[in-house]
Amino acid sequence: MTTIDLNCDMGESFGRYTLGMDEAAMAHITSANIACGFHASDPDVMDRTVKLAVENKVGVGAHPGFPDLMGFGRRKMDCSPEEITNLMIYQIGALSAFCKVNGTRLRHVKPHGALYMAAVEDPEVARAVARAILAVDPDLLYVALAGIKGETMTAMGNEMGLKVVYEAFPDRAYTPEGNLVSRKLPGAVIKDPDQVAKRALLMAKEGRVVAVDGTSIELDAQTLCVHGDNPAAVDLVKNIRKVFAQNQVDVAPMGGV
Amino acid sequence: MTTIDLNCDMGESFGRYTLGMDEAAMAHITSANIACGFHASDPDVMDRTVKLAVENKVGVGAHPGFPDLMGFGRRKMDCSPEEITNLMIYQIGALSAFCKVNGTRLRHVKPHGALYMAAVEDPEVARAVARAILAVDPDLLYVALAGIKGETMTAMGNEMGLKVVYEAFPDRAYTPEGNLVSRKLPGAVIKDPDQVAKRALLMAKEGRVVAVDGTSIELDAQTLCVHGDNPAAVDLVKNIRKVFAQNQVDVAPMGGV
Amino acid sequence: MTTIDLNCDMGESFGRYTLGMDEAAMAHITSANIACGFHASDPDVMDRTVKLAVENKVGVGAHPGFPDLMGFGRRKMDCSPEEITNLMIYQIGALSAFCKVNGTRLRHVKPHGALYMAAVEDPEVARAVARAILAVDPDLLYVALAGIKGETMTAMGNEMGLKVVYEAFPDRAYTPEGNLVSRKLPGAVIKDPDQVAKRALLMAKEGRVVAVDGTSIELDAQTLCVHGDNPAAVDLVKNIRKVFAQNQVDVAPMGGV
Amino acid sequence: MTTIDLNCDMGESFGRYTLGMDEAAMAHITSANIACGFHASDPDVMDRTVKLAVENKVGVGAHPGFPDLMGFGRRKMDCSPEEITNLMIYQIGALSAFCKVNGTRLRHVKPHGALYMAAVEDPEVARAVARAILAVDPDLLYVALAGIKGETMTAMGNEMGLKVVYEAFPDRAYTPEGNLVSRKLPGAVIKDPDQVAKRALLMAKEGRVVAVDGTSIELDAQTLCVHGDNPAAVDLVKNIRKVFAQNQVDVAPMGGV
Repeated sequence: MTTIDLNCDMGESFGRYTLGMDEAAMAHITSANIACGFHASDPDVMDRTVKLAVENKVGVGAHPGFPDLMGFGRRKMDCSPEEITNLMIYQIGALSAFCKVNGTRLRHVKPHGALYMAAVEDPEVARAVARAILAVDPDLLYVALAGIKGETMTAMGNEMGLKVVYEAFPDRAYTPEGNLVSRKLPGAVIKDPDQVAKRALLMAKEGRVVAVDGTSIELDAQTLCVHGDNPAAVDLVKNIRKVFAQNQVDVAPMGGV
Repeated sequence: MTTIDLNCDMGESFGRYTLGMDEAAMAHITSANIACGFHASDPDVMDRTVKLAVENKVGVGAHPGFPDLMGFGRRKMDCSPEEITNLMIYQIGALSAFCKVNGTRLRHVKPHGALYMAAVEDPEVARAVARAILAVDPDLLYVALAGIKGETMTAMGNEMGLKVVYEAFPDRAYTPEGNLVSRKLPGAVIKDPDQVAKRALLMAKEGRVVAVDGTSIELDAQTLCVHGDNPAAVDLVKNIRKVFAQNQVDVAPMGGV
Repeated sequence: MTTIDLNCDMGESFGRYTLGMDEAAMAHITSANIACGFHASDPDVMDRTVKLAVENKVGVGAHPGFPDLMGFGRRKMDCSPEEITNLMIYQIGALSAFCKVNGTRLRHVKPHGALYMAAVEDPEVARAVARAILAVDPDLLYVALAGIKGETMTAMGNEMGLKVVYEAFPDRAYTPEGNLVSRKLPGAVIKDPDQVAKRALLMAKEGRVVAVDGTSIELDAQTLCVHGDNPAAVDLVKNIRKVFAQNQVDVAPMGGV
Repeated sequence: MTTIDLNCDMGESFGRYTLGMDEAAMAHITSANIACGFHASDPDVMDRTVKLAVENKVGVGAHPGFPDLMGFGRRKMDCSPEEITNLMIYQIGALSAFCKVNGTRLRHVKPHGALYMAAVEDPEVARAVARAILAVDPDLLYVALAGIKGETMTAMGNEMGLKVVYEAFPDRAYTPEGNLVSRKLPGAVIKDPDQVAKRALLMAKEGRVVAVDGTSIELDAQTLCVHGDNPAAVDLVKNIRKVFAQNQVDVAPMGGV
C-alpha cells in the first residue's frame, strides 16, 4: 500500500478576522502548516489551531513568513540571511511552545508565501531557512518544492543534513521540465475535482505528473499541498481522499505517525 | 556564604533602535530578563542578547509583555486571561528557541511592565501568567514581587506548583508594610550608590529592608532587580557587586548554576 | 418631513482579511464611520471604502481606535490623554487624505470600540478626543452617545465648541434611565427586524424609545447606528429604510447633504 | 546672493526609543523630512517634531516609508504601485494633520530609504510616488535625486506636473557620471567637515560637484541633504552654515519662506 501526506496551510485567522475553513479542512488532511504570527495568526489562533490538529491526529508544522501582516507575507522583503534565520527561529519557537502546551511536538517547517518563493529562487535565503531549522531541531522535516525548481531549497537542506520532504501540487499545471506553470498563465490552476484527484493519485502511486504538453514526467513527492480556503477547496480534498481510498493509497503525516 | 541573584531587564533594543547598555551591564548581573518581541526586542536582538548572556554565564529568563511596542508594554491592556496565557506562551516559546540555538536553556519568567503590575493587582491575571509558565515548562522559575503586594502573584504560582522566586528592589523605597513607595512620591527611587549597595547587602544577608519610617522590616527575596539603562545604573550594579564581594555575598543565577 | 441619519462602521477589512459587507450595506446608510488603520483597515481598504461611500453619496466620518489590531480596538489601553489626542489626530489626518483624493471631505468623527467606551466613562478621555477633533477641524461633527451615559462625551464636546451629534441604537434595549442595557444581559440586542424598524421610527419621529420596563422615555438622537457585518444586519437596515419610507422619514448624512 | 535649502530626516524616534538629535539639528536646517509612523515615528513623536520645526521656522515635509518598523524602512518590499500610492497618501495625510494642528502646512514629500531607492530605480514606483503627491496636493514639492540616476524620479514628477526639487549630498562621493558612489566602496562617505562644507558651497554657488576622478561636473540641486544622527553630524551641518555665511550663501526652506 502506498502512503502519502496531504499538507494544508492552517491557522491564518487573526484577531477578529477569520480566514480559511480550518475545522472543515482539518478532518481530511494529515499535516497542518500553521502560521506563526508574522504574516498571519496570533497566539490565540495558534493555540486553537494546534488543538484542532491534535484532535484530528494531524501532524503540526510551522509555516513562518515575512513580518508583513498587511501583505499576508506575499510581498518579498529584502531581509538579510541572518534576519531570515532569526525570524524563522522566533516563529518556530513560538509555535513549538503551543505544541508542547497541547501535548504534541512540532514535526515540520514549510516557509510561507514570498519567503518560500525566495528560498526557491535564492540560495542564500534557502541556506538561511535551512540553518534556522537545523539550529532549532535537526529532526524537523524541511518541506521543499519537488522538481527542478526546488533544487536550490533541497540542496541547502541536504547540505545541512536536514530531512527534506518534497512537496507537489495536484491542482497546479506543470511544465514538461517539472516546473509549476505560472499562476499568471491560463490553466495554471486546475479546478475540476476529478482531474485534481486523478493527478494526486498519479503523484502518490507513481511519482509522476502529466505536464501541460501531455508528457508524463517523474515528480518525486512525499507530501501533496491542498487548500482549505473555501467550500470548493475542502471538496477537492474530500474527493482526493475518496479516490485515494478507492485506490489503496493511505494517508499519514509526513515523517510517519 | 550567602548567595543571591541580580536580575536585569535586557534585550530591549528594536531594529535600528538601541536601548540600554546590555554589553556593559551583562558583565555584572547573574540573570537576564530578555524581552520577547511584543513590548520590545526583535528576533535579531533576542539572538544577540541570549548569546551575550551565555558568554557572561548569565541565566536567561523570558520577559514577556503586552503587545504594545509603541507604549513599551507600560500601558495596561484589558486582555482576557486566555489572551494573557497565550501571549505569554508565544513569547516564552520564541525566546526558548533562541536559548536552544545558543546552547542554553530558559530558566525563569518575569512579566514586564504593565503585565507585571496587572499580575500584582489582579488574581485573574496572576493565574493566567502562572498557567502559561506551567503549561510551557513546570521547571521554569516564576519571578514574583516580594512582600505583601506580591502575595497575589505568589499565591497563584504556589497554586500551580511553580517554583516562585521573590524579587526585591534595592533602589526603591519601601513602606513599613513592605510595599514599594509609588514612583510618583519623592524619594521613591534611591540614587546614591552607597545607599543602594547597603540596601542590597541587607536584603541579601538578612532578608530585611529599612522602610521609609526607619523601621527594619522582613523582606524575603532571592533575586534583586537592577538596571542597565545608563552609565549611572551600571555603576550602581558594579558598586553592589563590590560591596557584596567585601561582605562575603556571592552571586549566582536564580535557581543555581 | 423628519430627517435622520443612519451611520454604520465601515472599512474594517485588513490586507487579505475581509470583514463586513460594505458594498451591500453602503447602499442603505447615510454616514460611514471608516476605520483608520489602528484597530482595523489599511491604506488600500481606506481608499476603497471612501470611494464606495462617495459613489453611494454617503457622508464620510473617521472611526479612530486604539492601536490594537489584534484586539480590534476592543481592549481598553491605558493611554494618556496626550497619547489619545495624538493617535486621533493621526488617524483623522490619514482618512482626510483619502477623502481629499476621492473628492469629498471628512464630515464626522466617532471613536471606535474601547476608545468610545473610555470616552463615555472618563472625562479625561472624552476631553482628549474632543481636543483632537477641534484641533484638526472645528467643523467636524462629534458623534456622542445619546442619553445620560453620554453626558460626559457631550459635555466635553460642548466645552470645546464642537457640533455634537447624538447617536442612538435601534437594535439595543434601553433602561428606564436611558442607558444601554449591558450586552451581557439577555435581551440586550434586539434581532427582530420589525421591532428594530419600529424602534428606529420612534427614535426618528418622536425622539423617544421604549425602555425594558415598557415606559417610553425621551432620547434625543440625530443619528442611528446600524450594522453591516452580515446578511441579517443588512436586512435590518433595509427594513428600517422601508419603514422610514412608509412613514415619511427621510434619511440624510449627519450635518446635511 | 545664492539661496539653498538644507534638508534633514527628523522625527525618527518611536515610543520609548530615541533616535537622532532633533533638537540640536533643527536649529541649523531649513527643511525637515518627518517620518510618518510606518518605518519610524509615532503620533506623539510627529506632533513633537512638527512643533520643533515650527519653532525653528523649518519647512515641514513628509518622509513616508515602507510599513517596516523592524527594518526601519530600509528593506525593499515588493508592494504594487497601488499599494505604494495608498501607503504614501495615508502617511502624508497623517503628517498633514499634525501640521494643521500646529499652525503650519506641509510643503514637501521625500520618500524614505528603500522606498526612495525603489523610486530611483523603478519607473512604476516613481510614478506611484508622484501620483500620491499629486492626489493629496499638487502644490507639494517632490524631492528627487539630482543627477542622472534621479532622472526616473524626476521624469515621473514632471509627467504629473509636480514641482520637482533636486537633492544632492555634500557628504557623499560622486562618480564622473554624476551618480552617488555606492556606500559599499571606500571613500563613499566624506567625513571631514571642511571638505563637506566646501562641497556644499560648490553645490550651492555653482551647481557643481568634484567627482572621484577629480573632474568638476554639473549637478543642479536646490536642496542639500544633511544628517542629525550624532554630534559629529550636527557639527558637519553647523560648519556648512558657517562656511555659507562667510560666502554669501543664504539658506531657506525649499519652496521659499
